[in-house]
Parts: sequence; structure tokens; C-alpha cells
Amino acid sequence: MRRVEPMTGESLGRVIEEIPLVDHHVHGVLAGEVSRRQFEELITESDRPVPAWMTQFDSQVGFAILRHCAPVLGLDPHPDPETYLARRVELGTEEVNRRLLAASGIGHFLVETGYRGDEILGPDQMAAVTGKPAGEIVRLEAIAERVAAEGTDAAGFAARFEAVLWERSRTARGLKTIVAYRHGLDFDPGPPTAAEVTEAAGRWLRASDRSGPARLDDPVLLRHLIWTGIERGLPLQFHIGYGDPDIDLRRSDPLLLRGLIELAEPRHVPLLLLHCYPFHRHAGYLAQVYPHVYFDVGLGVSYTGARSVAVVAESLELAPFAKILFSSDAWGPAELHHLGALLWRRAMTGVLSGFVAEGEWSEDQAVRVATMIGERNARRVYGLGEDA
Amino acid sequence: MRRVEPMTGESLGRVIEEIPLVDHHVHGVLAGEVSRRQFEELITESDRPVPAWMTQFDSQVGFAILRHCAPVLGLDPHPDPETYLARRVELGTEEVNRRLLAASGIGHFLVETGYRGDEILGPDQMAAVTGKPAGEIVRLEAIAERVAAEGTDAAGFAARFEAVLWERSRTARGLKTIVAYRHGLDFDPGPPTAAEVTEAAGRWLRASDRSGPARLDDPVLLRHLIWTGIERGLPLQFHIGYGDPDIDLRRSDPLLLRGLIELAEPRHVPLLLLHCYPFHRHAGYLAQVYPHVYFDVGLGVSYTGARSVAVVAESLELAPFAKILFSSDAWGPAELHHLGALLWRRAMTGVLSGFVAEGEWSEDQAVRVATMIGERNARRVYGLGEDA
Amino acid sequence: MRRVEPMTGESLGRVIEEIPLVDHHVHGVLAGEVSRRQFEELITESDRPVPAWMTQFDSQVGFAILRHCAPVLGLDPHPDPETYLARRVELGTEEVNRRLLAASGIGHFLVETGYRGDEILGPDQMAAVTGKPAGEIVRLEAIAERVAAEGTDAAGFAARFEAVLWERSRTARGLKTIVAYRHGLDFDPGPPTAAEVTEAAGRWLRASDRSGPARLDDPVLLRHLIWTGIERGLPLQFHIGYGDPDIDLRRSDPLLLRGLIELAEPRHVPLLLLHCYPFHRHAGYLAQVYPHVYFDVGLGVSYTGARSVAVVAESLELAPFAKILFSSDAWGPAELHHLGALLWRRAMTGVLSGFVAEGEWSEDQAVRVATMIGERNARRVYGLGEDA
Repeated sequence: MRRVEPMTGESLGRVIEEIPLVDHHVHGVLAGEVSRRQFEELITESDRPVPAWMTQFDSQVGFAILRHCAPVLGLDPHPDPETYLARRVELGTEEVNRRLLAASGIGHFLVETGYRGDEILGPDQMAAVTGKPAGEIVRLEAIAERVAAEGTDAAGFAARFEAVLWERSRTARGLKTIVAYRHGLDFDPGPPTAAEVTEAAGRWLRASDRSGPARLDDPVLLRHLIWTGIERGLPLQFHIGYGDPDIDLRRSDPLLLRGLIELAEPRHVPLLLLHCYPFHRHAGYLAQVYPHVYFDVGLGVSYTGARSVAVVAESLELAPFAKILFSSDAWGPAELHHLGALLWRRAMTGVLSGFVAEGEWSEDQAVRVATMIGERNARRVYGLGEDA
Repeated sequence: MRRVEPMTGESLGRVIEEIPLVDHHVHGVLAGEVSRRQFEELITESDRPVPAWMTQFDSQVGFAILRHCAPVLGLDPHPDPETYLARRVELGTEEVNRRLLAASGIGHFLVETGYRGDEILGPDQMAAVTGKPAGEIVRLEAIAERVAAEGTDAAGFAARFEAVLWERSRTARGLKTIVAYRHGLDFDPGPPTAAEVTEAAGRWLRASDRSGPARLDDPVLLRHLIWTGIERGLPLQFHIGYGDPDIDLRRSDPLLLRGLIELAEPRHVPLLLLHCYPFHRHAGYLAQVYPHVYFDVGLGVSYTGARSVAVVAESLELAPFAKILFSSDAWGPAELHHLGALLWRRAMTGVLSGFVAEGEWSEDQAVRVATMIGERNARRVYGLGEDA
Repeated sequence: MRRVEPMTGESLGRVIEEIPLVDHHVHGVLAGEVSRRQFEELITESDRPVPAWMTQFDSQVGFAILRHCAPVLGLDPHPDPETYLARRVELGTEEVNRRLLAASGIGHFLVETGYRGDEILGPDQMAAVTGKPAGEIVRLEAIAERVAAEGTDAAGFAARFEAVLWERSRTARGLKTIVAYRHGLDFDPGPPTAAEVTEAAGRWLRASDRSGPARLDDPVLLRHLIWTGIERGLPLQFHIGYGDPDIDLRRSDPLLLRGLIELAEPRHVPLLLLHCYPFHRHAGYLAQVYPHVYFDVGLGVSYTGARSVAVVAESLELAPFAKILFSSDAWGPAELHHLGALLWRRAMTGVLSGFVAEGEWSEDQAVRVATMIGERNARRVYGLGEDA
């Protein structure tokens, strides 16, 4: 029997390195300079100050920055943090952004604009800096909070939210919900009634009247946003799993979404589970059994650094390969955009060339799957057309 | 100090290849021909149609079929799906079944007969096709539904169920419950009272009278079935974890069985946790601390293909080696029977030869553990006697 | 660009071998001889008799003892259990303890004294046998049960507990709670009121009056112990995850502690999550986002033997390296102390030299992280000063 000669890890690696990735969930890069303290606080999901007796550089993501971003800025790998940050200042944020984004090889950005949008570049600016197309992902909760801030009454909230959402998402590629942060995924899955929405909107707007803009965390309203988003018909992203401590990680297990997934199934709206760490195997299960469910391991890749190979490997179990996507979920320092892409390429190369070397996959299969996950699946789901 | 010369992966692999596996939880192979669409739907746990924009061959199990089953049918590894399925048709189901089952090297089948039994071969037919012994595992819920279909009243249900169960399991090797599907494992662990059973049976039978055979999903009745099964005294299998979307995966965590496990402990009935993915580490814990608990990673092996090495490795942590078993849980295409055995052998060889190469295990230990898990533990638990 | 020449696994291994580990959670070694039956029951977390048809030596921890402890007792690796135990008897417990503890290379012991303290050596005896410093970790529940046994009334319980805790912990390095065993981690996180404590103490003391010393498992009292412990201000250890079947593993997920972690944050008391298997990734998340949370994979290392490399690797993902500690959690046979240290060193060497070989970490980083986790972090948290 003829044996296929396994592709070497290097040649597969070269192919994977050249995939013009579609980053289907990302935020803008920092617009301005940051201090060391600020930089360290931007490379952790903690929202607490970094204690004086430690540095966040002593972590997988810190080591990965020193290893992989330093050379892009013209340093040897593994400098000390001081050297790295001094070089960053020397080059200036604009040049740092330009270099790291270019080196990431990301070919298309879908930029989520709902979080601290004034500190980072918007989609158009991302496109300008990179010379690559950048579409928008609209955050449902941000729209609702804008509707409240601009003034509405309880009875008019639902109609106003719908109008603004349709307007704001006219050219958007998808929607996003952070119900995992605002409540947890253990919510009643069905759409609330109009009367329930009006009542909940009244409670929320009164709270805002009393003490300034109230955080939208009412489960009735959150469900209403989600179901209105499903009505809108664009691909709908869910934050899942790992994130800042505003989240109760236990209540962000994607298996909690089963009820909603089943109720939404007849609408044929793609549901995209983001990050998912440490529940990525649960997400892989959902992506196998439900035709409209997709997932990625975004944030879990950059933050596990040298260990991201294991995380990516675990994402390649139950899910059909047409249901897995790439994202960086980077926000702020362009190091995170660069690492999201670089560590994903490195992990895919390691895992898939292992499958090929063990004789389990053919090299054609490996190339095809890497291209599907890195680019083609996102192009299909978001209707981005073929790569130019 | 004398250093044991580590056994090479190849020689350990040859030993493992020749273990006449006891497949302690399997279903029959397909009796008839299937179309491509049907075949794709049989190689996923999804019960939904495969979307037009993807093929289920683009998955770990799909790639494993093309890699490992193609050669058994006389093709090179990694053909395209069309070539593979054309060859399948050319040979005919009977020959495909015969070849794939023979090549699996499974030496004893314990066949669970409770699911769509008319589409697949029964235990006797499996024995006839393979020339190997095939015992039966009886599904409790199927017996109860037959009792209802044949006519009984609420007051007579318990006695009738007991009588039919004893009769149907006269020569059976074990029982099985799918309470994980029908309710979830988060049920009140104790046996219900006779009055509760009668009342619940009444509700269920009335529902069946009204609208045809009702699905048995009442937790009181399900608990009654389980406790009657424990009374029967045969080894009792539990579906755990991964399966079709009829399951709420969150409620199939084996840790939810703790109450039942402790209440059942004085009965000395072996409780066998099947599949368990992605909760196999939880199952390993239960198998360490409770003398009557066993587990396997059945279905999680075939469906993770090239990644099954990791799943098998994770199953070899806390549990004593006397408490781990092999199963394929294959249903339908003989490809799944073949892969269940082949991928298990491949994974065990990879993992155990790694332990030996690192100097952690002796080669004798590796051979003994593979034999225990592949064959001896099941022979002891099910009283199958020594291999002929 | 200059490439750092990767350190070989061997040279990194030599450095790691010489770290004078701080074992920040350990118990004493056995004081007397044990039979084979007793020995087997001490090398499992099961509290049930080992069934006659199996031996606990057929497990990862059993194989690891035969592999790694046999040479310390002057045998070849991988003897049969009979040979091993005969040699143990021949040398005598004292010599066995001396040899295995010395070979462990542990440089500082923090000994938890709350569990069956009369069967094992106390901190002073551990220091005498090893010639290394041994501090004490005081178990909150043991103190409370002593207060009850010595006689108190409901109204006086809180004051008496406080007084005895302060007295008993005068020179202690830390406190420990086993609320995971006594209730589960799903408790109301806030401190109970004085009236609630008095009422709960009354219930508990009356139960003890009726039928002898009652197990302290009232959640109000357990919460009171924890909050009094936080008031005391010493580092506070939590049993998490894997342990004997007295625990409901589902209710020992560290994510359940989120409420308490947030309420305790302003007190600046280090919270140390012990073992954590199979929830160690959850612990890593908490250690990243909360400045006062630390964790180890203690017991999960010894009991997974050849697989402990994977467990340690999984612990090196999200947590900053300043937040990870080493412990053996050994109790009884000095084999467990020896394996805790040896398998941790072996796993760290394997994982970190992998990172270095892949070019992801520098050798300096690897050495520094191993030293932080093995020794320096514990010295800082417990105020142990620099190594002599």
C-alpha cells in the first residue's frame, strides 16, 4: 500500500503562516502611549492593580510578548521588560501598532466597538493602519445603553432599541452579546413578552434617573436584546468563559445556552461562541450537534502563551472543522493582536503537523483545515466574499 | 543500579494489537445499504441534517474513517469521501461489515439492544458475522416502554416491569440506563415508594392513552427502573456525558451520581459509567474512591480521532487500572466498531509506550495494564470466563 | 538575529533537582509500621477497603512508588509489591522515613496538624527527622471541635474559639479550612451575625451533648470559622477538589468561592487553593484575576504519577507565575512526600524544558519560574525569609 510521505512541520508551517486570517472578533489597538503600569494592566484580564511584589510580565502572555513581539520591534527575543518597554516608547505607539499589526498577517478584521471605544482605534482607523478591510461587530448592550442615555420611556424602549439597532448595524457584519458578564448564561431562554420588557425597562430607566446611567443587567432586558438581535438576523457572538473578574466563570459555561440554542435554531442565525476557555470542549460538543453553533478559542490562545498548543489541540476534537473559527479578541496593545495570530499559527502548525507525522491526516487535509478555520469559515458565516 | 531497557513502541504495539478486546458496550452493525446523506448522519452524534455547506467527513471521525477504514476496504489511506463511499457500495454492506469487524480484532461483544434494534444486527447476528461470542445488555427504559405498549395498569406496572425485566435479562450480561437522556443525572437518588411508582405510572400510562406511546421521562419511574435494575443484580451501565443533543450535557456529569453511588454501594452491583467525555476525569475520581464504580471513554475515542490519544491519556490518571474498561459504543456503520478498537489500541500504544520510554513504567506493567483494560477487567465484571 | 541556545532538558533538570522546596501544605509521616492492607489503603484517597480482586499498587501512584521509591530503599526500579513491602519492613519505618524524606530534597515543611495527628509525626518531629525547618498550619475546624470538646456554651463559643485560635496559631504560618468537605464551597459568602453564630453553636453543642462529639458541618459555623480566620490575618488555605469520598467533588469547584474571594479582598489575606484537580484551570483563572488568590496542584501530582506532567502543564496557563506554589499534601507513608517532590520536579523539568526547546522561553526564565513556584513564592507569602 502506498504511504503518503508526511509533510514536514516546516512546510505546513509556511502555508499556515501565509493564511490571510479573518479575525472575526477583535477590538482596536491603543491610540495613545501607556506607562509601564498601564501596559501591565492591559496584558491581564484582571481589573485590579498589579501587586507591587510581582510583574505581569512573569506570565505566559508576558513571556510570549518578550519572545515574539520583541523581534518585530527590532530586539532580540527574551529581553527584560524594561528594555522592551523602552524600545516601545522609542518607536512610538503608531509605529509599534503598524509593525505588530502588519506582522500578524491578519487579512480582515471584524472589530467589536462596544467597549471603551474612545481609547482605541475604530474599524476605519484599523483599516487605515493596516490597509486591510475592517468590518464592524455591534454590541447589543452598548446600543441599549445609548438608547437609555439619549432618553426614552419604558413603553417606547423596545421600539427605540429596534430602530437604533437596525440603524447602527446597517453595514455591520455581526452582533455581540455580553450577557455572560451582565447576568450569566443561566437565563430563561425564551423571549420575554412586550409587557415584561416594558416593565423591566421602566425599572432600569428609573434607576438611571435616580443615580446616573445604570448598568444593564436585568435578565428580562438582556433576553430581549438577544431575541431582537436574532430577529435582526446577523451572526450573533456570545462572550463565553474566560474574561475579566466581572464574570462569574461558573455561569459562563456554554452548556447553559442549550435552551436558547434550541429555541433559536429555526431562525438559522449563526451563533458564535467566543473564547470558551476553560469550557472549549463543551463548545466543541455544541458545535457538533447543533448546525448553527460555531466557536473559537480566541482569548484563551494569547493568554496561555507557550501552552496555547494544548488549548488549540483540545478545540480540534468533536466539532466539525467547518464550525471552528479564529479570533484574537485583542483589545489595546497591538502585542495582543500580534500574539493572537502568531500563537494560533504556531499552535495549528504544531498540532496538525503532529497529526500528519503520526500518519493520521494527509498534508492536504491539514492545509485545508487550517485554511477553513483561519479564513474560509468566517468568510462563509459573515458573507465576506472570497479573499482578493 | 540496573536500568530496564524500555520496550519500543512497536513491540508494545504488537502486543496491544493482538488483545482480543471485550467490547462491553456496543450496538449492532447496519443491516442494509445507506446513502451518502444517511452515512454522514450516522457518523455524528447530531440528529440534525448535515448542512449543505459542509460535510461530516471534515471532522476527526471522518478523517479517521478515510485513514483507517479505507485500507480495510482495499483503498489507499485518505481517499476522498466519494471514492470511499463508492468502494463501500461496490463491496456491499455484508462484506464491509465482515471486513471491518474482523479487522477490529474484537473478541467478545456485549450488545446493547434497546435503540432502533430493527435497523441493525442483534447479538446473535453479530456473533454469526464475526464468529465471536456476543452477549446482551438490556436497556431498562426499553423494557418499561414495552411493558406499557403491551398493556398494563398503574397498580400493576411495577410487578409487570419486574417480571418482564427478569425474563428478558435471563441470559443477559448486564443492564443499561439512559436516565442521563431522559431526565439528567440530577435526580433524587433513593428508590421511590410503591405508592409514588403507582402514581407516576398512572400519569405516564394516561398520557400514552391520550396520544400514543409516551416517552418515559418521569424521574420517579426512571429511579424505580434503576433501583429495580440494582435489585436484579447484574452489572448496571449508565450513559454519561457525550451523546446526541437529546442530552443536556451539563446534567450528565457523573459527579451528579454520587448520592446513588453511595446508596447502592451495599448491594455490590458494579456500576459502569460509559463514555464520560468531557467528564472522564470526574469518572476516574469516582472509580478511585468507590469500589463498585468503573468507567470507559468509549464514544469519546472514536469521535476524537487523531486526538483520542489525549482522551485515553486523561483516563489513565486517578482510577486504579482494575476499574477501567474498553468499549466502542459503535452503532450502525461498522466503521465505528473498527475505529473504536483501532483508535483505542493506537492511543494505548502511544500513551503506554511513552510511559515506558520515559522510564516511568516497566514494559511488563504496560502489557498487563493494556490487557486488564482491553479484556480482563470486563471478563471479571461480567463473569465471561477466560478467553478460549 | 541572535538565537538563544536552548538549555538542554538535563541541565535544567539538574537545577530543578536542587531547589530546596518549600512544601507549603503537608502532613507528617507515619510513626509506626503498617501491614500491606494498611499500606494500600494509605496510597488511595478512597476510605473503603481495597477489594480482594485488585491491588492499589495497580495504579499511577502505585507504579510511581515501585519506580521511584524502590531505588531509595536500595531495590531496582519496578519490583513487585511484595518485594517492595518486604524491603520496607526490613529497613524499618524510621529508616524508610529518613531515606525518603532526605531524598525528597524538601527544604522547609509547613505541616498541617488537624487530621489524625496521633498516627503521624508532628512539625517538631518532622524537623528532627529531616534537619529542616518545619512550621505549622492550623486547621480551623479542628480548633473549633476542640473548643466544643473542652466545654463551652453557645453564647461563649465565638469568644472561646477566637481565644483558642489566637493561642494555637501564635507561631503558626497559616490556617486551613476544610469547608469543602464539611459542606461544599457553595456557601453564603458573607460573615454570619453574632446571633446566627450563637444559635448555630447552640444546635451543634446540643447535638454533641446528645450523642457525643458532633461533626462540625453547619454552614453558619463554618463561615464563622473562615471569617474569624481571615480576621486572624494569616495566609488561609482551602482544600479544593480531589480528596477522599467524604467530599462532593462537584461542590468543591473553586469557582464557587468567587463571592468569598471578593468579600475578603480588602483584608489582603492570601487565599491559597490546594490541589484543585480536576478544577486546576479554574484555580489558574482565579489566581490571574484576584491579587490575593494563589494555588497549587499538590495531591493531583502524586496521584497521577506518570501523567502528572500533564497536570502540572495545565497549571501553567493563566496564572501569573508569582501565584503558583508547590505542595505534596502527603499524609502518612513517606513515599507520598518523596513522590510529591520528585514528580513535581520531573514534571516541571519536562514541561519547562519543552518550552525552552521550542524556543518559547529562555533558560533563565525557566530557572526563575521553577524557583518561584518551588520555593520563592511560598517564602514571600508565609514570610519565611530567605533560604539559609
